[in-house]
Amino acid sequence: MVRWRKLGILAGGGALPECIAASCAERAVAFHMIRIIGSAGPSLDALPGDNCGIGEIGKILRILKTANCDAVVFAGAVKRPNFAGLKVDWRGAALMPKIISAAATGDGALLGVLVDTVEAEGFLVIGADEAVQGLEAPSGVLGAHHPDENDFRDIRKAAAIINALGPFDVGQAAVVADGFVIAIEAAEGTDGVLRRCTELAADNGSGVRAGTLVKRPKPGQELRVDLPAIGPETIRKAEKAGLRGVAVEAGFALIIDRDEVVNCADKAGLFVYGFSNVDMGEP
Amino acid sequence: MVRWRKLGILAGGGALPECIAASCAERAVAFHMIRIIGSAGPSLDALPGDNCGIGEIGKILRILKTANCDAVVFAGAVKRPNFAGLKVDWRGAALMPKIISAAATGDGALLGVLVDTVEAEGFLVIGADEAVQGLEAPSGVLGAHHPDENDFRDIRKAAAIINALGPFDVGQAAVVADGFVIAIEAAEGTDGVLRRCTELAADNGSGVRAGTLVKRPKPGQELRVDLPAIGPETIRKAEKAGLRGVAVEAGFALIIDRDEVVNCADKAGLFVYGFSNVDMGEP
Repeated sequence: MVRWRKLGILAGGGALPECIAASCAERAVAFHMIRIIGSAGPSLDALPGDNCGIGEIGKILRILKTANCDAVVFAGAVKRPNFAGLKVDWRGAALMPKIISAAATGDGALLGVLVDTVEAEGFLVIGADEAVQGLEAPSGVLGAHHPDENDFRDIRKAAAIINALGPFDVGQAAVVADGFVIAIEAAEGTDGVLRRCTELAADNGSGVRAGTLVKRPKPGQELRVDLPAIGPETIRKAEKAGLRGVAVEAGFALIIDRDEVVNCADKAGLFVYGFSNVDMGEP
Repeated sequence: MVRWRKLGILAGGGALPECIAASCAERAVAFHMIRIIGSAGPSLDALPGDNCGIGEIGKILRILKTANCDAVVFAGAVKRPNFAGLKVDWRGAALMPKIISAAATGDGALLGVLVDTVEAEGFLVIGADEAVQGLEAPSGVLGAHHPDENDFRDIRKAAAIINALGPFDVGQAAVVADGFVIAIEAAEGTDGVLRRCTELAADNGSGVRAGTLVKRPKPGQELRVDLPAIGPETIRKAEKAGLRGVAVEAGFALIIDRDEVVNCADKAGLFVYGFSNVDMGEP
Protein backbone atom coordinates (compact mmCIF):
# COMPACT_ATOMS: atom_id res chain seq x y z
CA MET A 1 0.00 0.00 0.00
CA VAL A 2 1.29 3.42 -0.92
CA ARG A 3 1.16 5.82 2.05
CA TRP A 4 1.86 8.98 0.01
CA ARG A 5 0.83 10.89 -3.11
CA LYS A 6 4.08 12.40 -4.26
CA LEU A 7 7.56 11.30 -3.26
CA GLY A 8 10.57 13.57 -2.87
CA ILE A 9 13.74 11.63 -3.62
CA LEU A 10 16.82 13.08 -1.92
CA ALA A 11 19.28 11.59 -4.37
CA GLY A 12 22.92 10.79 -3.72
CA GLY A 13 25.21 8.47 -5.70
CA GLY A 14 24.76 4.87 -6.81
CA ALA A 15 21.91 3.01 -8.48
CA LEU A 16 19.26 3.45 -5.77
CA PRO A 17 17.72 6.84 -6.77
CA GLU A 18 17.12 5.68 -10.35
CA CYS A 19 15.71 2.40 -9.09
CA ILE A 20 13.23 4.30 -6.87
CA ALA A 21 12.25 6.61 -9.74
CA ALA A 22 11.62 3.60 -12.00
CA SER A 23 9.50 1.97 -9.31
CA CYS A 24 7.45 5.18 -8.87
CA ALA A 25 6.85 5.30 -12.62
CA GLU A 26 5.76 1.65 -12.57
CA ARG A 27 3.34 2.21 -9.69
CA ALA A 28 2.14 5.48 -11.29
CA VAL A 29 3.26 7.47 -8.23
CA ALA A 30 4.53 11.00 -8.85
CA PHE A 31 8.03 11.91 -7.68
CA HIS A 32 10.41 14.83 -7.61
CA MET A 33 14.20 14.37 -7.54
CA ILE A 34 16.44 16.51 -5.41
CA ARG A 35 19.84 15.81 -6.89
CA ILE A 36 22.56 16.46 -4.31
CA ILE A 37 25.30 18.31 -6.17
CA GLY A 38 28.57 16.39 -6.22
CA SER A 39 26.95 13.09 -5.21
CA ALA A 40 24.00 12.37 -7.59
CA GLY A 41 24.99 10.78 -10.90
CA PRO A 42 24.39 12.37 -14.34
CA SER A 43 21.80 9.74 -15.31
CA LEU A 44 19.31 11.49 -12.98
CA ASP A 45 19.47 14.79 -14.88
CA ALA A 46 16.72 13.77 -17.30
CA LEU A 47 14.21 13.08 -14.49
CA PRO A 48 11.88 15.75 -13.02
CA GLY A 49 13.70 17.54 -10.22
CA ASP A 50 16.18 20.15 -9.07
CA ASN A 51 19.84 20.36 -8.05
CA CYS A 52 20.73 21.39 -4.50
CA GLY A 53 23.84 21.59 -2.38
CA ILE A 54 23.77 19.45 0.78
CA GLY A 55 23.98 22.67 2.85
CA GLU A 56 20.99 24.32 1.17
CA ILE A 57 18.46 22.92 3.63
CA GLY A 58 16.03 25.83 3.22
CA LYS A 59 16.02 25.42 -0.57
CA ILE A 60 15.48 21.66 -0.30
CA LEU A 61 12.46 22.08 2.01
CA ARG A 62 11.04 24.83 -0.24
CA ILE A 63 11.36 22.68 -3.36
CA LEU A 64 9.71 19.70 -1.62
CA LYS A 65 6.75 21.93 -0.68
CA THR A 66 6.47 23.68 -4.05
CA ALA A 67 6.50 20.29 -5.79
CA ASN A 68 3.69 19.13 -3.44
CA CYS A 69 5.64 16.18 -2.05
CA ASP A 70 4.14 14.62 1.08
CA ALA A 71 6.83 12.00 1.62
CA VAL A 72 10.60 11.92 1.33
CA VAL A 73 13.07 9.11 0.81
CA PHE A 74 16.84 9.40 1.38
CA ALA A 75 18.49 7.41 -1.40
CA GLY A 76 22.08 6.82 -2.31
CA ALA A 77 25.41 7.76 -0.85
CA VAL A 78 26.07 11.42 -0.10
CA LYS A 79 29.68 12.51 0.25
CA ARG A 80 30.43 13.81 3.71
CA PRO A 81 30.61 17.57 3.23
CA ASN A 82 33.75 19.56 3.80
CA PHE A 83 32.26 21.92 6.40
CA ALA A 84 34.95 24.56 5.85
CA GLY A 85 33.92 25.24 2.24
CA LEU A 86 30.23 24.26 2.49
CA LYS A 87 27.69 26.50 0.75
CA VAL A 88 24.78 26.94 3.19
CA ASP A 89 21.55 28.92 3.02
CA TRP A 90 19.91 30.52 6.09
CA ARG A 91 18.17 27.34 7.13
CA GLY A 92 21.36 25.37 6.64
CA ALA A 93 23.29 27.91 8.70
CA ALA A 94 20.73 27.70 11.52
CA LEU A 95 21.12 23.91 11.57
CA MET A 96 24.92 24.01 11.40
CA PRO A 97 25.67 23.81 15.15
CA LYS A 98 23.43 20.72 15.44
CA ILE A 99 24.94 19.20 12.29
CA ILE A 100 28.52 19.80 13.35
CA SER A 101 27.96 18.33 16.79
CA ALA A 102 26.19 15.31 15.24
CA ALA A 103 28.96 14.93 12.67
CA ALA A 104 31.41 14.56 15.55
CA THR A 105 29.57 11.37 16.47
CA GLY A 106 29.44 9.92 12.97
CA ASP A 107 27.47 9.62 9.76
CA GLY A 108 24.48 8.02 11.44
CA ALA A 109 24.01 10.92 13.84
CA LEU A 110 24.41 13.41 10.99
CA LEU A 111 21.71 11.74 8.92
CA GLY A 112 19.50 11.70 12.01
CA VAL A 113 19.55 15.51 12.14
CA LEU A 114 18.45 15.71 8.49
CA VAL A 115 15.64 13.18 9.03
CA ASP A 116 14.39 15.09 12.09
CA THR A 117 14.42 18.37 10.15
CA VAL A 118 12.45 16.96 7.22
CA GLU A 119 9.94 15.27 9.56
CA ALA A 120 9.50 18.45 11.60
CA GLU A 121 8.27 20.13 8.40
CA GLY A 122 5.47 17.58 8.17
CA PHE A 123 6.89 15.22 5.56
CA LEU A 124 6.61 11.46 5.96
CA VAL A 125 10.12 9.98 5.81
CA ILE A 126 10.04 6.49 4.31
CA GLY A 127 12.74 3.90 3.74
CA ALA A 128 13.87 2.89 0.26
CA ASP A 129 12.38 -0.56 0.92
CA GLU A 130 8.96 1.07 1.22
CA ALA A 131 9.50 3.12 -1.94
CA VAL A 132 10.40 0.06 -4.01
CA GLN A 133 8.80 -3.37 -3.69
CA GLY A 134 11.10 -6.37 -3.35
CA LEU A 135 14.21 -4.42 -2.38
CA GLU A 136 14.52 -6.00 1.06
CA ALA A 137 17.15 -8.74 1.27
CA PRO A 138 15.47 -12.14 1.78
CA SER A 139 16.96 -14.80 4.04
CA GLY A 140 18.87 -17.77 2.71
CA VAL A 141 20.65 -18.52 -0.54
CA LEU A 142 20.03 -16.33 -3.60
CA GLY A 143 21.16 -17.93 -6.85
CA ALA A 144 23.02 -21.10 -7.66
CA HIS A 145 25.97 -21.09 -5.26
CA HIS A 146 25.93 -21.95 -1.54
CA PRO A 147 28.25 -20.85 1.25
CA ASP A 148 30.04 -23.77 2.96
CA GLU A 149 30.85 -24.24 6.64
CA ASN A 150 34.05 -22.23 6.33
CA ASP A 151 32.16 -19.38 4.63
CA PHE A 152 29.61 -19.38 7.45
CA ARG A 153 32.43 -18.96 9.96
CA ASP A 154 33.73 -15.99 7.96
CA ILE A 155 30.23 -14.50 7.72
CA ARG A 156 29.73 -14.84 11.47
CA LYS A 157 33.08 -13.21 12.23
CA ALA A 158 32.51 -10.27 9.86
CA ALA A 159 28.96 -9.76 11.16
CA ALA A 160 30.25 -9.76 14.74
CA ILE A 161 32.91 -7.17 13.86
CA ILE A 162 30.30 -4.78 12.44
CA ASN A 163 28.26 -5.29 15.60
CA ALA A 164 31.25 -4.59 17.84
CA LEU A 165 31.83 -1.28 16.03
CA GLY A 166 28.26 -0.14 16.70
CA PRO A 167 29.10 2.26 19.55
CA PHE A 168 31.46 4.15 17.23
CA ASP A 169 28.89 4.92 14.50
CA VAL A 170 31.12 3.49 11.78
CA GLY A 171 31.11 0.83 9.13
CA GLN A 172 28.52 -1.42 7.65
CA ALA A 173 30.91 -3.76 5.86
CA ALA A 174 33.79 -6.12 6.58
CA VAL A 175 35.63 -8.82 4.64
CA VAL A 176 36.88 -12.00 6.31
CA ALA A 177 38.73 -14.81 4.51
CA ASP A 178 39.41 -18.14 6.24
CA GLY A 179 39.12 -16.42 9.63
CA PHE A 180 41.51 -13.63 8.71
CA VAL A 181 40.07 -10.11 8.76
CA ILE A 182 40.97 -8.58 5.39
CA ALA A 183 39.18 -5.23 5.58
CA ILE A 184 36.88 -3.16 7.76
CA GLU A 185 34.94 -0.31 6.18
CA ALA A 186 35.15 3.22 7.54
CA ALA A 187 35.06 6.44 5.49
CA GLU A 188 36.20 4.84 2.22
CA GLY A 189 32.89 3.04 1.55
CA THR A 190 32.32 -0.46 0.17
CA ASP A 191 33.89 0.35 -3.20
CA GLY A 192 37.07 1.35 -1.39
CA VAL A 193 36.98 -1.89 0.62
CA LEU A 194 36.62 -4.03 -2.50
CA ARG A 195 39.39 -2.11 -4.31
CA ARG A 196 41.67 -2.84 -1.35
CA CYS A 197 40.74 -6.53 -1.43
CA THR A 198 41.54 -6.61 -5.15
CA GLU A 199 45.02 -5.18 -4.49
CA LEU A 200 45.67 -7.55 -1.58
CA ALA A 201 44.54 -10.55 -3.64
CA ALA A 202 46.87 -9.55 -6.49
CA ASP A 203 49.71 -9.17 -3.98
CA ASN A 204 48.95 -12.56 -2.41
CA GLY A 205 48.70 -14.12 -5.86
CA SER A 206 47.37 -17.54 -4.85
CA GLY A 207 44.59 -17.24 -7.42
CA VAL A 208 42.32 -19.17 -5.04
CA ARG A 209 38.99 -17.45 -4.29
CA ALA A 210 38.74 -16.59 -0.61
CA GLY A 211 36.65 -14.40 1.64
CA THR A 212 33.18 -12.97 2.00
CA LEU A 213 31.98 -9.39 1.95
CA VAL A 214 29.43 -8.93 4.72
CA LYS A 215 27.11 -5.91 4.98
CA ARG A 216 24.67 -5.19 7.78
CA PRO A 217 23.43 -2.05 9.57
CA LYS A 218 25.26 -0.71 12.58
CA PRO A 219 23.33 -1.69 15.71
CA GLY A 220 20.86 1.04 16.65
CA GLN A 221 21.03 2.87 13.33
CA GLU A 222 18.04 4.72 11.83
CA LEU A 223 16.74 2.05 9.44
CA ARG A 224 15.00 4.40 7.02
CA VAL A 225 18.21 5.97 5.80
CA ASP A 226 21.54 4.58 4.76
CA LEU A 227 20.55 0.90 4.90
CA PRO A 228 23.40 -1.25 3.61
CA ALA A 229 22.84 -2.03 -0.06
CA ILE A 230 24.32 -4.26 -2.72
CA GLY A 231 23.69 -4.37 -6.46
CA PRO A 232 25.15 -5.91 -9.61
CA GLU A 233 28.21 -3.63 -9.37
CA THR A 234 28.93 -4.99 -5.87
CA ILE A 235 28.96 -8.54 -7.26
CA ARG A 236 31.22 -7.58 -10.18
CA LYS A 237 33.68 -5.87 -7.85
CA ALA A 238 33.56 -8.79 -5.38
CA GLU A 239 34.38 -11.14 -8.27
CA LYS A 240 37.32 -8.95 -9.26
CA ALA A 241 38.50 -8.94 -5.63
CA GLY A 242 38.67 -12.74 -5.69
CA LEU A 243 35.97 -13.20 -3.04
CA ARG A 244 33.83 -16.32 -2.71
CA GLY A 245 30.60 -14.50 -1.97
CA VAL A 246 28.58 -11.65 -0.53
CA ALA A 247 26.31 -11.86 2.54
CA VAL A 248 23.84 -9.31 3.86
CA GLU A 249 21.54 -9.32 6.86
CA ALA A 250 18.12 -10.54 5.75
CA GLY A 251 15.45 -7.87 6.26
CA PHE A 252 18.07 -5.23 7.09
CA ALA A 253 19.73 -4.62 3.73
CA LEU A 254 18.69 -3.68 0.22
CA ILE A 255 19.38 -5.68 -2.91
CA ILE A 256 19.11 -3.43 -5.94
CA ASP A 257 18.20 -5.19 -9.21
CA ARG A 258 17.98 -8.65 -7.67
CA ASP A 259 17.68 -10.53 -10.98
CA GLU A 260 20.87 -9.01 -12.28
CA VAL A 261 22.61 -9.59 -8.92
CA VAL A 262 21.74 -13.30 -9.11
CA ASN A 263 22.69 -13.42 -12.77
CA CYS A 264 26.13 -11.85 -12.14
CA ALA A 265 26.76 -14.04 -9.09
CA ASP A 266 25.76 -17.27 -10.83
CA LYS A 267 28.04 -16.54 -13.77
CA ALA A 268 30.96 -15.57 -11.54
CA GLY A 269 30.51 -18.58 -9.23
CA LEU A 270 29.84 -16.37 -6.19
CA PHE A 271 27.26 -17.04 -3.51
CA VAL A 272 24.82 -14.37 -2.31
CA TYR A 273 23.39 -15.07 1.12
CA GLY A 274 20.90 -13.35 3.42
CA PHE A 275 21.84 -14.27 6.97
CA SER A 276 19.47 -14.17 9.94
CA ASN A 277 20.21 -13.79 13.63
CA VAL A 278 19.68 -17.55 13.92
CA ASP A 279 22.56 -18.12 11.48
CA MET A 280 24.66 -15.77 13.59
CA GLY A 281 23.82 -17.37 16.91
CA GLU A 282 22.67 -13.92 18.05
CA PRO A 283 19.68 -13.38 20.34
CA MET B 1 71.28 -5.75 31.35
CA VAL B 2 71.77 -8.07 28.42
CA ARG B 3 70.24 -11.51 29.06
CA TRP B 4 71.88 -13.20 26.05
CA ARG B 5 75.18 -13.73 24.27
CA LYS B 6 74.13 -13.87 20.64
CA LEU B 7 70.86 -12.66 19.19
CA GLY B 8 69.05 -14.22 16.24
CA ILE B 9 67.04 -11.53 14.43
CA LEU B 10 64.08 -12.92 12.50
CA ALA B 11 63.87 -10.02 10.08
CA GLY B 12 60.80 -8.87 8.18
CA GLY B 13 60.21 -5.49 6.50
CA GLY B 14 60.57 -1.95 7.81
CA ALA B 15 63.28 -0.18 9.76
CA LEU B 16 63.22 -2.31 12.93
CA PRO B 17 65.66 -5.14 11.98
CA GLU B 18 68.38 -2.66 10.99
CA CYS B 19 67.75 -0.64 14.14
CA ILE B 20 68.23 -3.79 16.27
CA ALA B 21 71.40 -4.74 14.40
CA ALA B 22 72.81 -1.24 14.95
CA SER B 23 71.97 -1.43 18.65
CA CYS B 24 73.69 -4.86 18.94
CA ALA B 25 76.79 -3.42 17.28
CA GLU B 26 76.74 -0.48 19.68
CA ARG B 27 76.42 -2.74 22.73
CA ALA B 28 79.02 -5.13 21.30
CA VAL B 29 76.52 -7.99 21.26
CA ALA B 30 76.82 -10.53 18.46
CA PHE B 31 73.83 -11.13 16.19
CA HIS B 32 72.78 -13.25 13.24
CA MET B 33 70.10 -12.09 10.77
CA ILE B 34 67.52 -14.45 9.38
CA ARG B 35 66.16 -12.49 6.45
CA ILE B 36 62.63 -13.64 5.62
CA ILE B 37 62.50 -13.87 1.82
CA GLY B 38 59.95 -11.50 0.32
CA SER B 39 59.65 -9.40 3.49
CA ALA B 40 63.16 -8.32 4.61
CA GLY B 41 64.53 -5.26 2.81
CA PRO B 42 67.72 -5.25 0.67
CA SER B 43 69.62 -3.06 3.17
CA LEU B 44 69.98 -6.13 5.43
CA ASP B 45 71.91 -8.13 2.81
CA ALA B 46 75.26 -6.72 3.94
CA LEU B 47 74.79 -7.89 7.55
CA PRO B 48 75.85 -11.34 8.85
CA GLY B 49 73.01 -13.78 8.28
CA ASP B 50 71.06 -16.06 5.96
CA ASN B 51 67.94 -15.93 3.82
CA CYS B 52 64.99 -18.22 4.65
CA GLY B 53 61.44 -18.71 3.48
CA ILE B 54 58.81 -18.26 6.20
CA GLY B 55 57.83 -21.93 5.76
CA GLU B 56 61.37 -23.25 6.25
CA ILE B 57 61.03 -23.62 10.01
CA GLY B 58 63.56 -26.48 10.24
CA LYS B 59 66.18 -24.46 8.37
CA ILE B 60 65.57 -21.40 10.56
CA LEU B 61 66.04 -23.40 13.78
CA ARG B 62 69.16 -25.11 12.37
CA ILE B 63 70.73 -21.77 11.41
CA LEU B 64 69.98 -20.28 14.84
CA LYS B 65 71.74 -23.25 16.48
CA THR B 66 74.70 -23.36 14.09
CA ALA B 67 75.22 -19.61 14.60
CA ASN B 68 75.20 -20.22 18.40
CA CYS B 69 72.30 -17.87 19.06
CA ASP B 70 70.74 -18.17 22.52
CA ALA B 71 68.00 -15.56 22.06
CA VAL B 72 65.67 -14.61 19.22
CA VAL B 73 63.82 -11.42 18.41
CA PHE B 74 60.94 -11.16 15.90
CA ALA B 75 61.42 -7.86 14.10
CA GLY B 76 59.55 -6.19 11.30
CA ALA B 77 56.45 -6.97 9.30
CA VAL B 78 56.22 -10.37 7.62
CA LYS B 79 53.79 -10.74 4.76
CA ARG B 80 51.08 -13.23 5.51
CA PRO B 81 52.08 -16.28 3.48
CA ASN B 82 49.97 -17.65 0.68
CA PHE B 83 49.61 -21.15 2.11
CA ALA B 84 48.74 -22.66 -1.27
CA GLY B 85 52.16 -21.86 -2.79
CA LEU B 86 54.24 -21.88 0.41
CA LYS B 87 57.65 -23.57 0.29
CA VAL B 88 57.94 -25.62 3.48
CA ASP B 89 60.64 -27.95 4.83
CA TRP B 90 59.87 -31.04 6.96
CA ARG B 91 59.66 -29.09 10.18
CA GLY B 92 57.47 -26.49 8.50
CA ALA B 93 55.23 -29.24 7.11
CA ALA B 94 54.87 -30.81 10.56
CA LEU B 95 53.81 -27.44 11.97
CA MET B 96 51.42 -26.69 9.12
CA PRO B 97 48.20 -28.03 10.71
CA LYS B 98 48.84 -25.92 13.82
CA ILE B 99 49.77 -22.89 11.72
CA ILE B 100 46.75 -23.14 9.46
CA SER B 101 44.36 -23.49 12.37
CA ALA B 102 46.00 -20.52 14.14
CA ALA B 103 45.90 -18.49 10.93
CA ALA B 104 42.14 -18.94 10.91
CA THR B 105 42.05 -16.92 14.13
CA GLY B 106 44.34 -14.14 12.97
CA ASP B 107 47.89 -12.86 12.79
CA GLY B 108 48.36 -12.83 16.52
CA ALA B 109 47.56 -16.52 16.88
CA LEU B 110 49.83 -17.35 13.95
CA LEU B 111 52.79 -15.53 15.50
CA GLY B 112 52.04 -17.31 18.77
CA VAL B 113 52.71 -20.69 17.12
CA LEU B 114 56.09 -19.49 15.84
CA VAL B 115 57.07 -18.08 19.26
CA ASP B 116 56.10 -21.37 20.96
CA THR B 117 58.14 -23.37 18.45
CA VAL B 118 61.26 -21.24 18.88
CA GLU B 119 60.93 -21.31 22.69
CA ALA B 120 60.43 -25.08 22.72
CA GLU B 121 63.89 -25.40 21.10
CA GLY B 122 65.41 -23.62 24.11
CA PHE B 123 65.82 -20.12 22.74
CA LEU B 124 64.94 -17.07 24.79
CA VAL B 125 62.40 -14.99 22.86
CA ILE B 126 62.81 -11.29 23.63
CA GLY B 127 60.88 -8.22 22.54
CA ALA B 128 62.41 -5.56 20.30
CA ASP B 129 62.22 -3.16 23.26
CA GLU B 130 64.64 -5.42 25.13
CA ALA B 131 66.95 -5.70 22.14
CA VAL B 132 67.19 -1.92 21.71
CA GLN B 133 67.34 0.60 24.55
CA GLY B 134 64.95 3.55 24.39
CA LEU B 135 62.58 2.04 21.84
CA GLU B 136 59.58 1.96 24.18
CA ALA B 137 57.12 4.81 23.61
CA PRO B 138 57.17 7.21 26.60
CA SER B 139 54.03 8.83 27.94
CA GLY B 140 53.09 12.42 27.15
CA VAL B 141 54.07 14.86 24.43
CA LEU B 142 57.11 14.16 22.24
CA GLY B 143 58.35 17.24 20.39
CA ALA B 144 57.01 20.75 20.01
CA HIS B 145 53.34 20.28 19.21
CA HIS B 146 50.55 19.37 21.63
CA PRO B 147 47.22 17.65 21.01
CA ASP B 148 44.22 19.82 21.94
CA GLU B 149 40.95 18.75 23.59
CA ASN B 150 39.44 17.79 20.24
CA ASP B 151 42.49 15.68 19.41
CA PHE B 152 42.19 13.91 22.77
CA ARG B 153 38.59 13.02 21.95
CA ASP B 154 39.76 11.57 18.62
CA ILE B 155 42.59 9.66 20.33
CA ARG B 156 40.17 8.19 22.89
CA LYS B 157 37.72 7.11 20.19
CA ALA B 158 40.38 5.49 18.00
CA ALA B 159 41.94 3.74 21.01
CA ALA B 160 38.52 2.42 22.05
CA ILE B 161 37.90 1.08 18.52
CA ILE B 162 41.14 -0.90 18.54
CA ASN B 163 40.16 -2.27 21.95
CA ALA B 164 36.70 -3.27 20.73
CA LEU B 165 38.26 -5.24 17.87
CA GLY B 166 40.42 -7.25 20.27
CA PRO B 167 38.33 -10.44 20.19
CA PHE B 168 38.77 -10.59 16.39
CA ASP B 169 42.61 -10.57 16.41
CA VAL B 170 42.74 -7.67 13.97
CA GLY B 171 44.09 -4.19 13.70
CA GLN B 172 46.45 -2.09 15.75
CA ALA B 173 45.64 1.23 14.09
CA ALA B 174 42.71 3.56 13.47
CA VAL B 175 42.31 7.15 12.29
CA VAL B 176 39.63 9.45 13.72
CA ALA B 177 39.11 13.07 12.65
CA ASP B 178 36.74 15.35 14.58
CA GLY B 179 34.86 12.32 15.87
CA PHE B 180 34.49 10.77 12.43
CA VAL B 181 36.13 7.36 11.94
CA ILE B 182 38.24 7.69 8.78
CA ALA B 183 40.00 4.33 8.68
CA ILE B 184 40.40 1.07 10.60
CA GLU B 185 43.40 -1.11 9.87
CA ALA B 186 43.01 -4.75 8.89
CA ALA B 187 45.21 -6.68 6.42
CA GLU B 188 46.45 -3.60 4.54
CA GLY B 189 48.76 -2.41 7.33
CA THR B 190 49.42 1.14 8.54
CA ASP B 191 50.94 2.24 5.23
CA GLY B 192 47.72 1.22 3.48
CA VAL B 193 45.68 3.14 6.08
CA LEU B 194 47.73 6.31 5.58
CA ARG B 195 47.56 6.00 1.78
CA ARG B 196 43.75 5.79 2.07
CA CYS B 197 43.69 8.87 4.32
CA THR B 198 45.79 10.75 1.76
CA GLU B 199 43.27 9.92 -0.98
CA LEU B 200 40.28 10.84 1.18
CA ALA B 201 41.89 14.15 2.18
CA ALA B 202 42.56 15.01 -1.47
CA ASP B 203 38.95 14.15 -2.28
CA ASN B 204 37.67 16.28 0.59
CA GLY B 205 39.97 19.11 -0.41
CA SER B 206 39.44 21.36 2.60
CA GLY B 207 43.20 21.68 3.05
CA VAL B 208 42.63 21.83 6.81
CA ARG B 209 44.67 19.32 8.83
CA ALA B 210 42.38 16.88 10.64
CA GLY B 211 42.61 13.57 12.38
CA THR B 212 44.99 11.45 14.42
CA LEU B 213 46.56 8.09 13.68
CA VAL B 214 46.39 5.94 16.81
CA LYS B 215 48.38 2.72 17.28
CA ARG B 216 48.17 0.35 20.22
CA PRO B 217 48.36 -3.42 20.69
CA LYS B 218 45.26 -5.54 20.44
CA PRO B 219 44.11 -6.47 23.96
CA GLY B 220 45.67 -9.76 25.02
CA GLN B 221 48.29 -9.88 22.30
CA GLU B 222 51.73 -11.44 22.80
CA LEU B 223 53.77 -8.31 23.59
CA ARG B 224 57.16 -9.66 22.50
CA VAL B 225 56.18 -9.84 18.83
CA ASP B 226 54.40 -7.48 16.51
CA LEU B 227 54.23 -4.53 18.92
CA PRO B 228 52.79 -1.49 17.13
CA ALA B 229 55.63 0.68 15.87
CA ILE B 230 56.09 4.10 14.36
CA GLY B 231 59.15 5.73 12.81
CA PRO B 232 60.10 8.76 10.74
CA GLU B 233 58.35 7.29 7.68
CA THR B 234 55.10 7.09 9.66
CA ILE B 235 55.33 10.80 10.45
CA ARG B 236 56.11 11.71 6.82
CA LYS B 237 53.13 9.70 5.59
CA ALA B 238 50.86 11.13 8.29
CA GLU B 239 51.88 14.62 7.18
CA LYS B 240 51.08 13.74 3.57
CA ALA B 241 47.69 12.38 4.70
CA GLY B 242 46.85 15.76 6.23
CA LEU B 243 46.67 14.43 9.79
CA ARG B 244 47.24 16.57 12.88
CA GLY B 245 49.24 14.01 14.78
CA VAL B 246 50.14 10.46 15.76
CA ALA B 247 49.43 8.84 19.13
CA VAL B 248 50.67 5.53 20.50
CA GLU B 249 50.08 3.73 23.77
CA ALA B 250 52.91 4.60 26.15
CA GLY B 251 54.86 1.49 27.16
CA PHE B 252 53.06 -0.65 24.58
CA ALA B 253 54.47 0.64 21.31
CA LEU B 254 57.87 1.15 19.72
CA ILE B 255 59.23 4.43 18.40
CA ILE B 256 62.04 3.75 15.95
CA ASP B 257 64.63 6.55 15.61
CA ARG B 258 62.96 8.84 18.12
CA ASP B 259 65.14 11.88 17.37
CA GLU B 260 64.25 11.78 13.70
CA VAL B 261 60.56 11.16 14.54
CA VAL B 262 60.51 14.30 16.69
CA ASN B 263 62.48 16.23 14.07
CA CYS B 264 60.04 15.27 11.27
CA ALA B 265 56.98 15.97 13.43
CA ASP B 266 58.23 19.35 14.63
CA LYS B 267 58.95 20.49 11.08
CA ALA B 268 55.60 19.24 9.80
CA GLY B 269 53.65 20.77 12.69
CA LEU B 270 52.38 17.36 13.86
CA PHE B 271 52.07 16.22 17.45
CA VAL B 272 53.39 12.87 18.67
CA TYR B 273 51.75 11.67 21.86
CA GLY B 274 52.14 8.66 24.14
CA PHE B 275 48.78 8.08 25.82
CA SER B 276 48.28 6.20 29.07
CA ASN B 277 45.23 4.38 30.41
CA VAL B 278 44.63 7.46 32.57
CA ASP B 279 44.31 9.61 29.43
CA MET B 280 41.89 7.05 28.06
CA GLY B 281 39.75 6.83 31.18
CA GLU B 282 40.40 3.08 31.09
CA PRO B 283 40.89 1.01 34.26
